[in-house]
Amino acid sequence: MFIRGDEPVTIKAAVAFGLEHKGRFVEELKALLRIPSVSTDPEHVGDVRRAAEFMALELKRIGMEHVRLVETTTTERQGHPLVYADWLHAAPGADGKPKPTVLCYGHYDVQPTEPFDEWTSPPFEPTERDGNLCTRGAVDDKGQMWMHVKALESLMVAGGSTLPVNVLVIFEGEEEIGGKGIARFVREHKDELKADAALVSDTSMFAPELPTLCVGVRGIIYTEIEARGARTDLHSGMYGGAAPNPFVALAQVIAKLRDGDGRIPIPGFYDEVRQPSADELKAWKALPFNEEHYRETEIGSVALMGEPGFSVQERTWTRPTLDVHGMPGGFNEVGAKTVIPSKAVAKVSVRLVPDMTPLESFAKYKANVESIAPKGVVLEVRLIHSADPIVVSTDNSYIRAATEAMRKVFEKEPVFMRLGASIPIVGDLVRELKIPTVLMGFGLPDDNLHAPHEKFHMASFHRGIESVVRFLSGVGAG
Amino acid sequence: MFIRGDEPVTIKAAVAFGLEHKGRFVEELKALLRIPSVSTDPEHVGDVRRAAEFMALELKRIGMEHVRLVETTTTERQGHPLVYADWLHAAPGADGKPKPTVLCYGHYDVQPTEPFDEWTSPPFEPTERDGNLCTRGAVDDKGQMWMHVKALESLMVAGGSTLPVNVLVIFEGEEEIGGKGIARFVREHKDELKADAALVSDTSMFAPELPTLCVGVRGIIYTEIEARGARTDLHSGMYGGAAPNPFVALAQVIAKLRDGDGRIPIPGFYDEVRQPSADELKAWKALPFNEEHYRETEIGSVALMGEPGFSVQERTWTRPTLDVHGMPGGFNEVGAKTVIPSKAVAKVSVRLVPDMTPLESFAKYKANVESIAPKGVVLEVRLIHSADPIVVSTDNSYIRAATEAMRKVFEKEPVFMRLGASIPIVGDLVRELKIPTVLMGFGLPDDNLHAPHEKFHMASFHRGIESVVRFLSGVGAG
Repeated sequence: MFIRGDEPVTIKAAVAFGLEHKGRFVEELKALLRIPSVSTDPEHVGDVRRAAEFMALELKRIGMEHVRLVETTTTERQGHPLVYADWLHAAPGADGKPKPTVLCYGHYDVQPTEPFDEWTSPPFEPTERDGNLCTRGAVDDKGQMWMHVKALESLMVAGGSTLPVNVLVIFEGEEEIGGKGIARFVREHKDELKADAALVSDTSMFAPELPTLCVGVRGIIYTEIEARGARTDLHSGMYGGAAPNPFVALAQVIAKLRDGDGRIPIPGFYDEVRQPSADELKAWKALPFNEEHYRETEIGSVALMGEPGFSVQERTWTRPTLDVHGMPGGFNEVGAKTVIPSKAVAKVSVRLVPDMTPLESFAKYKANVESIAPKGVVLEVRLIHSADPIVVSTDNSYIRAATEAMRKVFEKEPVFMRLGASIPIVGDLVRELKIPTVLMGFGLPDDNLHAPHEKFHMASFHRGIESVVRFLSGVGAG
Repeated sequence: MFIRGDEPVTIKAAVAFGLEHKGRFVEELKALLRIPSVSTDPEHVGDVRRAAEFMALELKRIGMEHVRLVETTTTERQGHPLVYADWLHAAPGADGKPKPTVLCYGHYDVQPTEPFDEWTSPPFEPTERDGNLCTRGAVDDKGQMWMHVKALESLMVAGGSTLPVNVLVIFEGEEEIGGKGIARFVREHKDELKADAALVSDTSMFAPELPTLCVGVRGIIYTEIEARGARTDLHSGMYGGAAPNPFVALAQVIAKLRDGDGRIPIPGFYDEVRQPSADELKAWKALPFNEEHYRETEIGSVALMGEPGFSVQERTWTRPTLDVHGMPGGFNEVGAKTVIPSKAVAKVSVRLVPDMTPLESFAKYKANVESIAPKGVVLEVRLIHSADPIVVSTDNSYIRAATEAMRKVFEKEPVFMRLGASIPIVGDLVRELKIPTVLMGFGLPDDNLHAPHEKFHMASFHRGIESVVRFLSGVGAG
């Protein structure tokens, strides 16, 4: 991060402010990371709210307006609040035209910490190691959300309590559980949320030092399959051979939902899958990627799996995939218990790609599971949450401004990639507000998202702040 | 339970003593049941020992000799103690021949209580309901073991501090975890354990009011299959499609270990399976059994499963079967976590029937699992515990004495059945001491062994005491 002589005064001042307050920015982030805002766990409802209040206080302090918590509810339950703020007084340009409005999005909720005992430092005690901040939420997404806030603060100070563009801020607390609350809020407040583009920093760079813009995300349907056999738990000695076993039934079902190559043999499941363009495939081939190095350093398994004839990028970005996340039920302690459990559950998710839709995909999936239910077992298939798959067009001024900002900070040409994961808000913004999203992320491939030892490289944090400063200034400059 | 005029004085007096002290016997049993002696749980090591000490104290009080705890160790760990006692002064018969020695066996350890929240009363607080005592361990095996102690007490009092036969007592604390400690003790003390027959009350009657002797038990190999994929937990969005999923791998393996009919398609697995005799099959057909009633009341599933062409008795008594008891790993809480777990485990057991052997069966099983390991996953197959399958010959004086005793108490002809479950000690006694075991059990088919709401019908408890009194007296009478 350095300051160039030929730049507008406010950009220079904002970048200098960021440099000067590096240490404070990190300490503030640590305080945020200490709040265990695990959105999926009912025991952490209060912590999630504390994190929202922390964000609201800071947005108010730096000069944002209309700061408030927006309560969310879904049909199922009371949700976690949104944090809303805006600042809409950007001076018109030299041409008299009003400045555009950028919607800054982030999420302050985090994934659970299980398996807890694999963390070498407490998951909610930020620990600095090798230039990284190690905590649950460090990169996903508290650290990256905090970049936005610190970029806004730097611009506010540099601009004398003004910003170079109009800004809306929405931070959500349910990203890790499907974001139904924000989806509803956006749907019901389309007219107030007049933005021209969104900025989301919830992704990673393709490689260290390689500025990256993400232009597509996979969707998801997260489901539970519950298998019920006997009325109560039974002794496997007494009843083994006559009583159905829910785990065996689930195993038989799962083995029919994903074949040995990772293909999903559900009738019609690939009908809507759109192939990436020849240009995209060509660009991906040029990315710095070594499959054996990836297997060894990122996965660490004896072999990779996946559909033959597709590269790792295609398999993880543009192909639907199915995973099992846990199979609760029965006896899971140390030792032995000879029980035939009455019921068992499989937590199964399917990643979706354009042009699949969550509802249609779930319908095909559910019908298939029910059609292959083993004898003696009743299956119930539940949809826990879902998100649309999205591809963003690269042909717009916001993507260009983002490219320019990152090129300046990294002094390197940014690359375009897609994301295998799901970011539900991107779909909501396209669908409801018809605006493009700039996915400008600063994580690294080995940041252990959703896993023990999650981390965020602090150099990336500071570069992220400068990139956001330059992006917002660039959009403001027209 | 009533006293007949034409009986020896000591039997009459012993039965009368049992009648008179009914209430106390039950209260004492409740105190034993309150000790949470869960042998598989390291947290309950102290409770298991307390239960052993409880038994030892009582055996001493009623006049048994050489009462002591015998420490057990296996290659893996310190085990739970055995309780040993004897009384070897039975007066020779009129013919001058020494009286036989009966080895009374029971186990004071119990199964875990999971799923804890399905119990309507606390699992370690004995609760009387509809003539039943409801607690973990009520029938398996504390209640039935207590019958032995109370029969010995009744005989001791009636006989003026003597018994009609010589008696050895061994109560173990590891039956629910494979009984390696007692196996070693019996193996290493063959010469001291000079008994002529064993009496085990750890089984059930075929139907209420139907006196039953069990003449065969299935064996078991209890295993864990651990599947390891990636080095650490991974985000299923980022890596789904490239990283192996241990749960999917286990599902694929399990689906190949047990087919839709419950058959185990492991090469050579049925080579040693001995068919029951034509007489046995005929007798089983005559048992009071209605398959639809069994499905409805005992299993409660929409359908039974199992191998076509075999009756429920054959499926559960004389056919090998495979069950999955739990699949720990990954995310098992309420809600959603999009993780590809680094590893997952399946707890899988296989029931064995004569003439299969645990070691050979495990070797075939392990080789088969390893040969079908899915790509990208490393499988480790562990044997947790095992037990031999056994068939007891009905052609001996001890089975005849048991038949006679139960006929008197129930005023009905006893039936012979087999047991689908495993009782490791029966195999140990045949192998090491070459003695037959009388399996005289008083549970009922709906006693919920190993499940929530375990219970023991108190009328059966008192009949059991009388049956043991009559059996030991009968053996003593020659």
